[in-house]
Amino acid sequence: MAIEHPYLMFLGDAPDQLAAKTAQGVAHWRPEWCKGQFRLPGCNADLKLPEIATMAEAAEAGCRTVVIGVANRGGVISEAWVEVLEQALDLGMDLAAGLHNRLAAVPRLREAAARNGRQLFDVRHPTKDFAVAAGSKRPGKRLLTVGTDCSVGKMYASLALAWEMDRRGMKVNFRATGQTGIFIVGEGVSVDAVIADFISGATEWLTPANEPDHWDVVEGQGSLFHASYAGVSLGLLHGSQPDALVLCHEPTRKHMRGLPDFSLPPLDLCMQRNEQMARLTNPDVRTIGIAVNTSGLESDAAHRYLREIEDTMDLPAVDPVRDGVASIVDRLE
Amino acid sequence: MAIEHPYLMFLGDAPDQLAAKTAQGVAHWRPEWCKGQFRLPGCNADLKLPEIATMAEAAEAGCRTVVIGVANRGGVISEAWVEVLEQALDLGMDLAAGLHNRLAAVPRLREAAARNGRQLFDVRHPTKDFAVAAGSKRPGKRLLTVGTDCSVGKMYASLALAWEMDRRGMKVNFRATGQTGIFIVGEGVSVDAVIADFISGATEWLTPANEPDHWDVVEGQGSLFHASYAGVSLGLLHGSQPDALVLCHEPTRKHMRGLPDFSLPPLDLCMQRNEQMARLTNPDVRTIGIAVNTSGLESDAAHRYLREIEDTMDLPAVDPVRDGVASIVDRLE
Repeated sequence: MAIEHPYLMFLGDAPDQLAAKTAQGVAHWRPEWCKGQFRLPGCNADLKLPEIATMAEAAEAGCRTVVIGVANRGGVISEAWVEVLEQALDLGMDLAAGLHNRLAAVPRLREAAARNGRQLFDVRHPTKDFAVAAGSKRPGKRLLTVGTDCSVGKMYASLALAWEMDRRGMKVNFRATGQTGIFIVGEGVSVDAVIADFISGATEWLTPANEPDHWDVVEGQGSLFHASYAGVSLGLLHGSQPDALVLCHEPTRKHMRGLPDFSLPPLDLCMQRNEQMARLTNPDVRTIGIAVNTSGLESDAAHRYLREIEDTMDLPAVDPVRDGVASIVDRLE
Repeated sequence: MAIEHPYLMFLGDAPDQLAAKTAQGVAHWRPEWCKGQFRLPGCNADLKLPEIATMAEAAEAGCRTVVIGVANRGGVISEAWVEVLEQALDLGMDLAAGLHNRLAAVPRLREAAARNGRQLFDVRHPTKDFAVAAGSKRPGKRLLTVGTDCSVGKMYASLALAWEMDRRGMKVNFRATGQTGIFIVGEGVSVDAVIADFISGATEWLTPANEPDHWDVVEGQGSLFHASYAGVSLGLLHGSQPDALVLCHEPTRKHMRGLPDFSLPPLDLCMQRNEQMARLTNPDVRTIGIAVNTSGLESDAAHRYLREIEDTMDLPAVDPVRDGVASIVDRLE
């Protein structure tokens, strides 16, 4: 069941802007869904959305769901939050959170939801039981973003691709596999939080059979070259059966995220390895472009770097933020 | 915490021998731990262990744990079971089960365990919170069994290797990653049941730093070529950082288990792919032998097949049941 919008973005007592990273992603990609922001004393994050001071005001403004896309001080659902969140439920709004701790584990919230017939979405915790992956080819086209590392812009690239395809009138769905993505489209599966045996099965469920000219753009996770998370990446690769891969990269990264002993793989090796492993469930897979997060480079250096990659890899290479992804989408039409 | 032996093997109302497959594996590898079998009316499985008619008799015989290694009719913990299992707890024994449904979810059993200070082991459900894999190399040696498919004899080969190494006086632990293996050594982690993000982390925890000449023999799961489970296999490969791989195969298998559209990979490709992926966390990995389940072949055909593989692959190839694994262990000394 999808999370209803418009949203009230709940920033709680987020100590800084980084703590509101998820909320910021939602506000960036769904400005039209975000009616305003709600902040408690001590909050140092700001999404530059209209300030909404009370839950009554949020309900009046038409908000359907209060989205908790923040990490607060202490990482738990504090007493100060419970008070206002309960009010939201009593006023007929749902709650959605991407926290490690579940909203449904707070008795007052669970009771208020039941009493009002409202929903609590703990998007980091899949509640569905998935089937084991069937592996057999299903109709519809799929594009998966893969990466040299974690956090190199796979979600951003996927959304930019899906938005551009939609703009061109193509049949397309963005398929969210992480909490920010789930808030952005209102549904999805946190694939890294499913039981290991069902990674591919959950991915198959998320990207079902579809019309032959319909595209699922699937948000990738981790990297085949990340020693902690490669199992998740491989399950996504097999379950999504991608026709097209877009390789994502961040050129200033000194080592694999969280693993100081591991350097990033070369782009060509990373591309070959992903194609090699993806062929198990789709022998026709091919890489159609490279999305680079060049935010760490000056504009000139960024464009020089992108031209270099285009020459070496013989594929369109873009920074989705600086240049958009039109040259990659051209390859799909 | 380890499951205490001796065991009483609880066969319940297992409809046939196959339903008691787990119990049979335990009785095969730990005859000295299995004091007897307990069967309810309608049970058609038989482990050829001494028949124990009551829980009082089991307690008197010194049993410490009642092991439920069966799938009963209906797949649930029936009322008929609860009665005798509660008696076992009241008599001071623990319970251990490999069922999908948890013992701990049955109120009468949970209460009886608490009342008597006894333990309920639901070995299919990891209860520990694992850390994300660190990836860095740790001391000690590790051997992992990998396979062309699921259920080709990886557990059997791993146990045969560990038992043979122990017989030779080598420092060795068998590391169980599935329910049968866990009953056989009393501890381990059902790796396919952990949260996807922690497959490698759980494997690192299971195979910790050790003396430089100590071997962990790690039970493999699934196959890199199995479209449903490859993510689990890759996480195991990265987390165990194997120095040595043993490739397991079943030559009469017509297609990948549960996937009629997928044929088994050639042995050489399967070996290369496993080595290639394993190099991420251990560049010195090498395959040291091939274990073949030839139970589907006559003795002559089996040995012809093994000699053929030895010639083609230039590695020792054995059926652990027919021939033992001495020629593979020779390579480790």
